[in-house]
Amino acid sequence: MVDSTDITEKTEQQLQALSEALESGTLHHAKGMLNALHPAEIAHLLESLPSHERLVIWPLVSKDLEAEVLINLGDEIRHGLIKDMSPEQLVEVAEDLEVDDSADFVQSLPDSVIDQVLHSLDSQHRKMLESVLSFPEDSAGGMMNTDTITVRPEVTLDVVLRYLRLLGDIPKPTDHLIVVDRDNRYLGILALSELLINEPENTVEDIMDDQVTAIPSDMEDNDVAMVFEDLDLISAPVVDGNNMLLGRITVDDVVDVIREEADHSVLSMAGLNDEEDLFSPVLPSSRRRAIWLGINLITAFMASWVVSNFETTLERVVTVAILMNVVASMGGIAGSQTITLVIRSMALGQFARNNRWWVFNKEVMVGLFNGLIWAVVVALIATFWFDDYSVGLVIAAALIINLIFAAASGVAIPIILKKLHIDPAIAGSVILTTITDIVGLLAFLGLATIFLL
Amino acid sequence: MVDSTDITEKTEQQLQALSEALESGTLHHAKGMLNALHPAEIAHLLESLPSHERLVIWPLVSKDLEAEVLINLGDEIRHGLIKDMSPEQLVEVAEDLEVDDSADFVQSLPDSVIDQVLHSLDSQHRKMLESVLSFPEDSAGGMMNTDTITVRPEVTLDVVLRYLRLLGDIPKPTDHLIVVDRDNRYLGILALSELLINEPENTVEDIMDDQVTAIPSDMEDNDVAMVFEDLDLISAPVVDGNNMLLGRITVDDVVDVIREEADHSVLSMAGLNDEEDLFSPVLPSSRRRAIWLGINLITAFMASWVVSNFETTLERVVTVAILMNVVASMGGIAGSQTITLVIRSMALGQFARNNRWWVFNKEVMVGLFNGLIWAVVVALIATFWFDDYSVGLVIAAALIINLIFAAASGVAIPIILKKLHIDPAIAGSVILTTITDIVGLLAFLGLATIFLL
Repeated sequence: MVDSTDITEKTEQQLQALSEALESGTLHHAKGMLNALHPAEIAHLLESLPSHERLVIWPLVSKDLEAEVLINLGDEIRHGLIKDMSPEQLVEVAEDLEVDDSADFVQSLPDSVIDQVLHSLDSQHRKMLESVLSFPEDSAGGMMNTDTITVRPEVTLDVVLRYLRLLGDIPKPTDHLIVVDRDNRYLGILALSELLINEPENTVEDIMDDQVTAIPSDMEDNDVAMVFEDLDLISAPVVDGNNMLLGRITVDDVVDVIREEADHSVLSMAGLNDEEDLFSPVLPSSRRRAIWLGINLITAFMASWVVSNFETTLERVVTVAILMNVVASMGGIAGSQTITLVIRSMALGQFARNNRWWVFNKEVMVGLFNGLIWAVVVALIATFWFDDYSVGLVIAAALIINLIFAAASGVAIPIILKKLHIDPAIAGSVILTTITDIVGLLAFLGLATIFLL
Repeated sequence: MVDSTDITEKTEQQLQALSEALESGTLHHAKGMLNALHPAEIAHLLESLPSHERLVIWPLVSKDLEAEVLINLGDEIRHGLIKDMSPEQLVEVAEDLEVDDSADFVQSLPDSVIDQVLHSLDSQHRKMLESVLSFPEDSAGGMMNTDTITVRPEVTLDVVLRYLRLLGDIPKPTDHLIVVDRDNRYLGILALSELLINEPENTVEDIMDDQVTAIPSDMEDNDVAMVFEDLDLISAPVVDGNNMLLGRITVDDVVDVIREEADHSVLSMAGLNDEEDLFSPVLPSSRRRAIWLGINLITAFMASWVVSNFETTLERVVTVAILMNVVASMGGIAGSQTITLVIRSMALGQFARNNRWWVFNKEVMVGLFNGLIWAVVVALIATFWFDDYSVGLVIAAALIINLIFAAASGVAIPIILKKLHIDPAIAGSVILTTITDIVGLLAFLGLATIFLL
């Protein structure tokens, strides 16, 4: 039973207990509480602590949970905790983990110790690890485990059942055994549920499913996640180009991929690094965030430069200075709406060559529509505020122009960035708002110069 | 085997084939291709089509896939497709689905037909459905299925094995049977893998695991997802307040919750509704997005009103009009970085009462730090550009003030909104940028009025 139905509440109580233990010095108390938790929960708690408290709590984690806790932490936090560990201790951690986690762990180590750790592993571990390390981290090969249980098609279920009892241990989660021929070529799967409901005299071949998806080792991790989601898979075999069985991917790792992908989208929209952590010390945080502020500064000065070309207009018609921000900001919002939808549809594989033109036209129409509606509102407000309908007309025209441009850029920018192999989630929004700022200011100040001077 | 390792490429080819079939009128071709796909894949394709093409393709989907395709579509798209279906057809769909999906489907129907559909269901279906419908949609009770297989602790594994063969069908995914007493009280689980590796003479009690998490029916769906992620679960029993077994939740539904939650974060950051769809018609899209533009218009005019109070300053020192946007926009970026991290940590349950003060101080320090660094840069640029160091000093001071305010607001706003039970992901960023705009403009124009006039 989970004690509390509110997880946030539960974490809060645990954090409270930990800080009290820290303050009162009764660490053995904290130790008991901590090690009764699941490693992922311990990792959550550690991530919720400021870094100095984290270093005090970490040694309380019992040795046999250490490896699982470490792999559940973000890279940066993990680095902070392992930097004082000896290569021997790191080898122990690597050996305690499943092979895919072990590969991730070893890859995240400083280059100087990776070789040392790899060489100190026992040969079976090293061999398995090297087979996974030979694939890119974000491919099916890099996600897979090698803990497959394989059976031959010609044996009976009775033999399989006896084999499993002999084995005495089935890795979690296993929903099917994998059927291969004598050359280890993938043939199909034998679901445990089929094994349980069919008569033991049947052969594997009789009841195996040979229509089931095997994942090619070079498939990207996001695509693997989509296959798992679409087909509601628990585990899936991974094969090489010759259909040879290499390993298997399990749904728990797929869930991690989905969570990471989601995190990446949200963080990169705010110009944050995937490693950014609310509980990092001040200096590394400041340094990482400074980059995005710097990029924004360049675009802000570009907008200022546009404005500076209309000095005379600004000096003569102060209303223009008061209102210019409205046009730029409305364009930014409308453009963000479009670019967010386009980037999301791209990630879901829904944005293809043959519907692009339709989407472009549609978004431009939406821009025109909302441009017209809000132009009327803005024009009325400006006219009444400054008692001058010509200001109202100018700002209305500028708003329509900018909203159409915003929609068009929102569709075009991700397409162009993708062609250039730049992640649109990271670079898209800053380019977009630069365009909407500049177009909005140019349109409004330009029209004002022509009609209001 | 998945034919292509690139899912986007694959979807693109399928979309291409569909449009060609549409244009050439060879719909039987498209029909064959479509119905060879998994329902979730058909749903993906339908979502990638503009609405008029969607209506042409939909009738090609074979009757026995209809229900599964419908449940994989977004609410709005589904509504578009079922609005011409008769209540009898809707009942068929509801009966074809698993009970949790069936509940979601029925809840998404127009109020006018819900009762009619519920009454036309056969009594067994209706009873199951009503048990799920009695829980909120976003709770464990609303996520669960009632397809549990239960066993008693006193029977032997041999009896269980024979019972399963008799049953002849095990619902997917099943990784364990649920052990209950004669009153249906939850006792523990019996993993299928344990059932397979242990000798048939053992009793269920001997090998069952009674330490395993049962999910209370009132737990929120996001919390359920976190439990599944932390403990790497495939399925979990759901119990009521008296520990009575109600049903079970499976990982495929958890994956959907995670994906929806992620989608919600990304979309709401851009002021988009969860139902917003790149392929919706122009009018509904325009209407939904107009709301956010309207809210933004109010905040933009608030900023304009602040500026209008400094008319004299603007008229006399045009440099101020040229540069004022820089201060406001840097504050917006810095504040967004902080608020994004805070909202994310809140969702992960990491942001608790006892680390709030630490986080607040830390973020303000980051704001001060980056304020100082970029103030120097901005001051130098402004000084050289306008050949006037006093402008440089004023903008530097305003930038530091705004970045500190941005950091403080980034931490405070989500806390306050959460207390008021308002989703910070939706309302947070617009409130934040309103504050950073106004504080930035006030600080810069105010200081300019004091020191530059």
